[in-house]
Parts: sequence; structure tokens; C-alpha cells
Amino acid sequence: MNFPGEQPPGVQAPTAETEGFRLNHTMLRVKDPEKALAFYTRVFGMQVLRRLDFEEMQFSLYFLARPEPGENVPEDTAERTVWTFSQRGVLELTHNWGTEAQDDFAYHDGNTEPQGFGHICFSVPDLEATVAWFDANDVTFVKRPDQGKLKDVAFVKDVDGYWIEVVQADRLGHLGD
Amino acid sequence: MNFPGEQPPGVQAPTAETEGFRLNHTMLRVKDPEKALAFYTRVFGMQVLRRLDFEEMQFSLYFLARPEPGENVPEDTAERTVWTFSQRGVLELTHNWGTEAQDDFAYHDGNTEPQGFGHICFSVPDLEATVAWFDANDVTFVKRPDQGKLKDVAFVKDVDGYWIEVVQADRLGHLGD
Repeated sequence: MNFPGEQPPGVQAPTAETEGFRLNHTMLRVKDPEKALAFYTRVFGMQVLRRLDFEEMQFSLYFLARPEPGENVPEDTAERTVWTFSQRGVLELTHNWGTEAQDDFAYHDGNTEPQGFGHICFSVPDLEATVAWFDANDVTFVKRPDQGKLKDVAFVKDVDGYWIEVVQADRLGHLGD
Repeated sequence: MNFPGEQPPGVQAPTAETEGFRLNHTMLRVKDPEKALAFYTRVFGMQVLRRLDFEEMQFSLYFLARPEPGENVPEDTAERTVWTFSQRGVLELTHNWGTEAQDDFAYHDGNTEPQGFGHICFSVPDLEATVAWFDANDVTFVKRPDQGKLKDVAFVKDVDGYWIEVVQADRLGHLGD
């Protein structure tokens, strides 16, 4: 595949050495896993596929995904671990033990200085219904779909302040026109 | 699905309102798109599915993915845009015009203070072959698979310094034992 107009300088065609590579997950640190997991499981319907506790290093990892209908997550723990690391669209939340009890502790969202990471994005079937769902769950908006220059795109914050973009794919065909 | 032992306090079962939600992409800001795109297309075999230039706001977005065999990316631009926002495992790179020419400009990787975002992760079929491929391409390692406490897991840096974890899923079944 080669899409004219999408290939700026520097782009190369994939080679055999990268066959089977998959973008598996994105890792974000969270202050309080109870709050973060309540948010991602309630508001975005994700499930915790694996929880890994590292006693010696005093941290826990939570791997969340939203399996599609027909994708059967293995019951067996070892098989489920392998499955989790084979997927796309996984979110890893890291909890360094004790941060949840520190009043002045907060992670950096990457959108104020120093900038870097910007956001994760969920694609949803119905943007208006999703906005109503967010409002029913008191989700904080950065930008509603009708605000700003980029219509049909919403941004909300998770409980740590990380930005989450929300789009309805079939309304974005006009982008770049 | 409900996996005993993976469900800490706060976790809720998915509801109908979140049906069809997909974790579509992760956005990272990059200083020089030519270098970043060369890296992700060469080293990780990704393809630029859509490039969007915002003249008025002086930035460009590059949406990269690694379609699986049998996943046919539409040729038509509008259809391809919709397709891109419907997938999982997409990487969005944002270029704010002009940063590539600023000698002292660098983005923050989230792993030094102030911490937040940690890394993205690729799943690969053969970790040793991938390490050899990285070495052949002069990729910078944060940690080789045989270093540190967590064996069988590598971390490299992209050209902006963001960390990329690299795992071979079928070697991680033991995690948490």
C-alpha cells in the first residue's frame, strides 16, 4: 500500500523484519488505581484482563482492554497474559504504591509544559449518545464536539487529568478536505 | 467475563452505553516528522495512513498503523480517514511547525520528572530477531531483554526519546507466577 499525498520525506516501506509487529499498549501512571479503574471500566467499558503486583518494587500494573464481540479472552491466567500481550488497543495503568495517600501528588498530563504525550483516543459509534453518557457520569470535558475549530471531536479528562479524545469515525471523512 | 483476582475495588462491569467503544490511537508530539516517520516506518514497519495539515494552526498530524494481513485499507481518502479512526493500534504523531529547526527544542518523555505517560509497547513474534534488527538500525536501548529484573522485556527509545517497550507475548505467560 502506498497512499499518494500521505508520504512525507523519511517514510519507508515496511520490510520483512517487522512482520507481525503490533502496537499493543500504551502505559500511563495513575495516582489511585481504585479511582482510575472505576473510571475506565465504568465510563469506557474496559475490563481488567491482567493485574500484576510487584511486591519487591512496590508497584502494580493493570492491563485493560475492550474485547470485541467474538473475541474470547482465555480463562486460564497464563494464556490470558499471552493473549493480552498479543492484542492491539490495550491500556496499561501503572500504580506506584502509596501515591494515592499523598494529598499533593499528581501526575503530569503532557499538555502543559513540559509537553510530550498528548492523549489517547476512543472511537465511538454515536458521539451525541456518548456525550450524554459522559454528562450522566460527571466526566470533565476539555472540549465538547461543538466547541473550538475542530468540530465533531470531543476531549475529556480521565481522573488523573490525562486527555482522552473521543470521535465518531464515520463523521470524520471530511477531514483534510 | 470476570477474571477472579484481576478485579480490584472500583472495577465495574461494562454497560450497554459503551458498546462499540474502541481504543483507537495514542498521540505523541514529535520535533521533526521526517526523522520520526523514518523511524516508525523503517524500524517498526508502520505506514502513514493519513496526513492532515492545519495551515491556520500551523501543525500537521500523521496517523500511522500496521495493518494486519487481510486488512484492506481503503484507497479513497475519505473512506481511509473513516477506516483509520475505526481501528485499534493507531499512533498519531503531531508536528507543530518549526520545532525541527530549533536546536534546543525537545519534548518530554514522561519518565523523568514530571512523570506521567510511560511508554507505548509493540508485541513482536521473535524478540531476539527484533533486537538484532534494532541493532542493525542503531536503535537506542533503555534496557535489553537480559538486563534488569524483568527478563524477556526490552525498552528502546524513539527519535524523540519516548520509550517503546518490546515484548514477545508467548514468553510472558509466566508473569505474575
